[in-house]
Amino acid sequence: MDQHNATLASGLVSSTYIQQGADALCTRRKLIKTLLSQRSLPKHGWDEDTVELFIKDAAYMDSNNFLNSVGVGEREARVASRLVAKRHFGLAHGIGRSGDVAAEQPKAAGSSLLAKMTNILVQDALKVAGMLDVGAVTVLPLATGMALTLTLLALKAKRPQARYVLWPRIDQKTCLKAIVSANLEAVPVPCLLEGDELRTDMPLLRSEIERLSPDKIVCIVTTTSCFAPRGADSLVEVAKLCRESGIGHIVNNAYGVQSAALCSLVTSAWRKGRVDAVVQSTDKNFMVPVGGAVVAAGIQDTSLVNAVNKAYPGRASMTPLLDVLITLLQWGVSGWRNVLEQREAVYRYAHVQLEAFAATINERVLTTPNNPISIGLTLANLRQVGPLSVPADQTDRNSQDSSNLQR
Amino acid sequence: MDQHNATLASGLVSSTYIQQGADALCTRRKLIKTLLSQRSLPKHGWDEDTVELFIKDAAYMDSNNFLNSVGVGEREARVASRLVAKRHFGLAHGIGRSGDVAAEQPKAAGSSLLAKMTNILVQDALKVAGMLDVGAVTVLPLATGMALTLTLLALKAKRPQARYVLWPRIDQKTCLKAIVSANLEAVPVPCLLEGDELRTDMPLLRSEIERLSPDKIVCIVTTTSCFAPRGADSLVEVAKLCRESGIGHIVNNAYGVQSAALCSLVTSAWRKGRVDAVVQSTDKNFMVPVGGAVVAAGIQDTSLVNAVNKAYPGRASMTPLLDVLITLLQWGVSGWRNVLEQREAVYRYAHVQLEAFAATINERVLTTPNNPISIGLTLANLRQVGPLSVPADQTDRNSQDSSNLQR
Amino acid sequence: MDQHNATLASGLVSSTYIQQGADALCTRRKLIKTLLSQRSLPKHGWDEDTVELFIKDAAYMDSNNFLNSVGVGEREARVASRLVAKRHFGLAHGIGRSGDVAAEQPKAAGSSLLAKMTNILVQDALKVAGMLDVGAVTVLPLATGMALTLTLLALKAKRPQARYVLWPRIDQKTCLKAIVSANLEAVPVPCLLEGDELRTDMPLLRSEIERLSPDKIVCIVTTTSCFAPRGADSLVEVAKLCRESGIGHIVNNAYGVQSAALCSLVTSAWRKGRVDAVVQSTDKNFMVPVGGAVVAAGIQDTSLVNAVNKAYPGRASMTPLLDVLITLLQWGVSGWRNVLEQREAVYRYAHVQLEAFAATINERVLTTPNNPISIGLTLANLRQVGPLSVPADQTDRNSQDSSNLQR
Amino acid sequence: MDQHNATLASGLVSSTYIQQGADALCTRRKLIKTLLSQRSLPKHGWDEDTVELFIKDAAYMDSNNFLNSVGVGEREARVASRLVAKRHFGLAHGIGRSGDVAAEQPKAAGSSLLAKMTNILVQDALKVAGMLDVGAVTVLPLATGMALTLTLLALKAKRPQARYVLWPRIDQKTCLKAIVSANLEAVPVPCLLEGDELRTDMPLLRSEIERLSPDKIVCIVTTTSCFAPRGADSLVEVAKLCRESGIGHIVNNAYGVQSAALCSLVTSAWRKGRVDAVVQSTDKNFMVPVGGAVVAAGIQDTSLVNAVNKAYPGRASMTPLLDVLITLLQWGVSGWRNVLEQREAVYRYAHVQLEAFAATINERVLTTPNNPISIGLTLANLRQVGPLSVPADQTDRNSQDSSNLQR
Repeated sequence: MDQHNATLASGLVSSTYIQQGADALCTRRKLIKTLLSQRSLPKHGWDEDTVELFIKDAAYMDSNNFLNSVGVGEREARVASRLVAKRHFGLAHGIGRSGDVAAEQPKAAGSSLLAKMTNILVQDALKVAGMLDVGAVTVLPLATGMALTLTLLALKAKRPQARYVLWPRIDQKTCLKAIVSANLEAVPVPCLLEGDELRTDMPLLRSEIERLSPDKIVCIVTTTSCFAPRGADSLVEVAKLCRESGIGHIVNNAYGVQSAALCSLVTSAWRKGRVDAVVQSTDKNFMVPVGGAVVAAGIQDTSLVNAVNKAYPGRASMTPLLDVLITLLQWGVSGWRNVLEQREAVYRYAHVQLEAFAATINERVLTTPNNPISIGLTLANLRQVGPLSVPADQTDRNSQDSSNLQR
Repeated sequence: MDQHNATLASGLVSSTYIQQGADALCTRRKLIKTLLSQRSLPKHGWDEDTVELFIKDAAYMDSNNFLNSVGVGEREARVASRLVAKRHFGLAHGIGRSGDVAAEQPKAAGSSLLAKMTNILVQDALKVAGMLDVGAVTVLPLATGMALTLTLLALKAKRPQARYVLWPRIDQKTCLKAIVSANLEAVPVPCLLEGDELRTDMPLLRSEIERLSPDKIVCIVTTTSCFAPRGADSLVEVAKLCRESGIGHIVNNAYGVQSAALCSLVTSAWRKGRVDAVVQSTDKNFMVPVGGAVVAAGIQDTSLVNAVNKAYPGRASMTPLLDVLITLLQWGVSGWRNVLEQREAVYRYAHVQLEAFAATINERVLTTPNNPISIGLTLANLRQVGPLSVPADQTDRNSQDSSNLQR
Repeated sequence: MDQHNATLASGLVSSTYIQQGADALCTRRKLIKTLLSQRSLPKHGWDEDTVELFIKDAAYMDSNNFLNSVGVGEREARVASRLVAKRHFGLAHGIGRSGDVAAEQPKAAGSSLLAKMTNILVQDALKVAGMLDVGAVTVLPLATGMALTLTLLALKAKRPQARYVLWPRIDQKTCLKAIVSANLEAVPVPCLLEGDELRTDMPLLRSEIERLSPDKIVCIVTTTSCFAPRGADSLVEVAKLCRESGIGHIVNNAYGVQSAALCSLVTSAWRKGRVDAVVQSTDKNFMVPVGGAVVAAGIQDTSLVNAVNKAYPGRASMTPLLDVLITLLQWGVSGWRNVLEQREAVYRYAHVQLEAFAATINERVLTTPNNPISIGLTLANLRQVGPLSVPADQTDRNSQDSSNLQR
Repeated sequence: MDQHNATLASGLVSSTYIQQGADALCTRRKLIKTLLSQRSLPKHGWDEDTVELFIKDAAYMDSNNFLNSVGVGEREARVASRLVAKRHFGLAHGIGRSGDVAAEQPKAAGSSLLAKMTNILVQDALKVAGMLDVGAVTVLPLATGMALTLTLLALKAKRPQARYVLWPRIDQKTCLKAIVSANLEAVPVPCLLEGDELRTDMPLLRSEIERLSPDKIVCIVTTTSCFAPRGADSLVEVAKLCRESGIGHIVNNAYGVQSAALCSLVTSAWRKGRVDAVVQSTDKNFMVPVGGAVVAAGIQDTSLVNAVNKAYPGRASMTPLLDVLITLLQWGVSGWRNVLEQREAVYRYAHVQLEAFAATINERVLTTPNNPISIGLTLANLRQVGPLSVPADQTDRNSQDSSNLQR
């Protein structure tokens, strides 16, 4: 309903009303115009309708949605089921080309546009979350583990003689598997207990590098977000060590974007030392279904992120990118900020409540200052057999407050 | 994604691809432009996406969908449930104003536009079906019976002294109820048996007019579509009689639009005599859910249709109009023609098959040349007790052919 | 996924997980079970998914959605457009039969069930809103004006000699039109100014009854919700007068359900005098798209509501009922209560703010204690030409507070 | 609406109608029951509604959709955007666990069930297409290229000393990239020209194995579906050679499922020699959006498919599986067969038309009997400068026939 159509419609409905309506439509379309020209996360979230308007407009630009067009090739993005087509808004070409998962597709201008925009908005979102000097971002339609594997493969390709991956140990299977699946040899480095907290054993890491020889080591894989009592790895120290030793450094920041402290840690690390890539989940940080990961690098060195894009063989599902795009457009900067703040508030609240509860059962919350995401509780005196007797008033307070935790 | 946006997007995806996509979008939007400028049923049906595009664009023009707008009145079309809003595409103002169901609403330019367009397309569709010289059409959000009542009330208002409605009898409750609910007195006029068929008893009709006195008679309500062995009323003769006698004439054409013969009959009637309004169902003729009716008049006299619009007190549901609009846009002239032809073909097929079947059980299909919609079967010899023994080969043929009847 | 299916699925996924999932499904279905057995508005609102589950289950029970079934009649609820079918959840038969809009349809068990349930839940909702002793409720797929017309027609049928409708005047076109469209004669009775407020002129009403003679009067149509400075009519006094005089009484309670005071007024009226029917809008009270009205009566006399149902000729659209059903299920008692309380709070807030604002421009808010819905402002000193100069701090406060008014 | 609910509903609507509706619902649910008990592709396709019913029932079994449940972990499948949640039917947990992409998830019984069912139905679909003795199937949420990389990594893990991949050359970038991305060394083996067609050079392949030494070779990657004039590789001969030499064999069957000839070739290959895995695209074969691949193996050796599942690090997107599941359920055996037959018919038709056309421009269609998917045309005499002059009647015929190619 552009100006021309508004004029046409004025013959049917009086032009004053039509013009008012056309202006409203224009306001809505201006949001899209602003997105395309400013190329940044909108200040305020869009309503669902405008998001759909934008995605559908893009979808209509893909060749499989051209009216009066018949395709004869093998890449025509034919979709048999209407139910399937609908859930993808008619988008079916996926992303990428044989050569590069971030490349544009000749037959899919709309999909290509949405994919580019997703990477741009995610870069912005990382900045809002506190990750500064981000130089390159690629959203992969692979969950964190597989994204780590691909990143390791791309790094290994640059260091053909190397085969070890030093890995300050965490008790989580996926990361280990990601290394093994890349046909690399994981060398777990046990942590050091400092007070309650498990921290990176820098001296041991240093000696392992010497023992194995730097040129045989692909990289160190550090971890930020993890279960207490393990704290985030000493990212800055490791980054400095990697720079000195000339070995790679990949950060597993799986669900760390939600924590300002961890984002700040990542920023410091790539400012002060070597960080080749930081990998994070889309589902845990941006609240979308499982299936995507963000691989990011600081402005200091974006070569590995580019190599990852170019290493991706063939095209790929667009769904995880689209989910993130929709979510970020609906949030905008203010909505995203709000989600982050709420997370921090809920964490602090849970911490205080757990401390109070622990006191009543003669236990205590572990002191893990480097873990801003997970909370550990001692179970030292928990010898009691039978059902736990929680003080009555505590139960009440809990049930009353539980609504605060609900979405 | 107008030209300006395409230029903006070209910075992200190469301009050749973007331009190709923008052209495709333009082709799609051109369909809407053509509809608004030509104001006629499109030659070819639109795909579902373009239909949605059009309706949503219109919905965004209604004040309840304006971004950044807060309403404080009692007519703000607030919708509490997202599920409800979605099924109405955000359209919530309904149609009409206090004064006129066909009037435009200041707060709802889009709804008003869609309502106008519905009436225009239905007028076209009636023409394609064979109803010529249509002068006025209004689609009411009332099913046939209630639409008849409203039409009768509007006619009665013009003839305040009259209270009788002459009604060549059909065995269907709704029409009778429609008369009674208007607080008018129905005077059933029995039909005449001509061969197998029940036809309008013109002499009796004439004598009833004399008996009751023309100025006491609001109108004659004739029927076209009905169950065999009743045939369509002698519309032309009745129309002439009404003109002569100066009494009204309303045609109950409930499911007659689908028959070219009945449409032709209506055309002849308003060309040669008096027809104040022809009422037909939207669900039976246009295959939409129950809820709407079309009140039409020939170019000879459109005053009653206008009076009906003006008689409607207040606003009304838009749903029945929107259902028809969507369906007609998806059909276009060619699709609608196709539906009509298929109906005729299925009717002929059923006729032939029933005749063949009837012969096998020593019965016959009734000869009802004035009923092109329903088929009657004698049951004269059907004395047999126990399950019907259908000849084996007949059963096979039936099951084989049944697919022809399926949609 | 009943117990039998859970057992079958256990071969594919371990039975512990399947059982947990099956239990969750069971919890959801139990909500439906409770609705069907208790037949009252659920305490707490349902989530959208459960609402859809219930409606779709009902839709599958309508014959047009039977698998492997071919219909050959004219009432098969064929729907041509998938887009149309989807927005109606596959429900296409509408409601009612030739004889009664509240009657069940043999081919549409599901639609019939949903329609019955709607009437039941609306009756509950009226009670929650403060309308007590409700004896009969019918939700009509007609907006308020047309519903008034139908109610007047049904009442007139019971009083064939009568033709006048006494109408304490309000300046709103629809109600007048509703009377005229029923081919009845509206006799406006001017209001009396008491202080700022316009109130029912009981003596005049009495004398008009005498003047016209009770047996010539169909009814008095009173109004509750209206624009200030008119207050709600003196319902109790009118109801008593109607009982004395033996004439009908219809209350136009268009948007009065939202006000506890008006609901209470209605209750008193039918407890203490004669009220044949109270008509209210579904869109204004239950926040659904325009298209439906609720006709209610107290337990003292439900005959007119039943007559209205029986007067409705033919079937009718189900949409307005379904919209209300969905909304009420999503609200539940607690959600509906919340909406009502919020309305009262916003009204009080607006009243205070307007008073403060009026003071700054040397005007005042009218004292209209019998109008709990609308607020009037004097414009006595508003002589200024040119743009209104609002005190600067007032503007700020307004913009700051406007968010409170947003939904 | 089980029997218990039907009884409850019978109080509202007469039990005959309710029972009929309940029976219809039962018929629909029985389809699901049959799927769960027989665990095979349904004979006839399901309607869209039943497919949604099944998926939604499963979704309600995932913990994120439990009513009245609050999650506090990091794997709660929280979805921020309603638009995103809707397009995934509420499914958000993805598939797999840290250890195995085919493993079930404790918190997601429904997702796990759907994933299992997808693999089962795809195995059936391969059989219908002509791939016999299928022993293991896994549908990966990775497009063909990345699925090849993962498969190569899993195979390499079993042959740690090997690093070469012998690759009968095709001119397509993705496959080469898939090898390189796995950090393996691709050794292209040029094809042999036999007549018009390019075929596997078996002697050269043999000599390359000797040259590089079998224990240094991970596998041979052969190709079935490709552009003419290259024919499908000599799968059986290569399979035998691989068995003899003790090296792996992976078949790139990207879009070969649609061809009965290629399916038969695969069957022969794994019956007569060594085939570790056959990789095919979901989008090209099952007409879904880009994003998935099927890795299959014959009953002779399913170890690599199992290794691939276990090699997948972490969870993964469910979308590509769900798209295939929906499509196969909507097709059933008969619909899928129909798609396959139509493809073959269109291919033959295009072949004949191209031959006729080629004759008119003094060219010919290449004879490539081992390529049942793509058609090559000589351009030997195409020296003409300027626009191609197509014989007039040919153009007409083309435009006339184009409708046959449209979906």
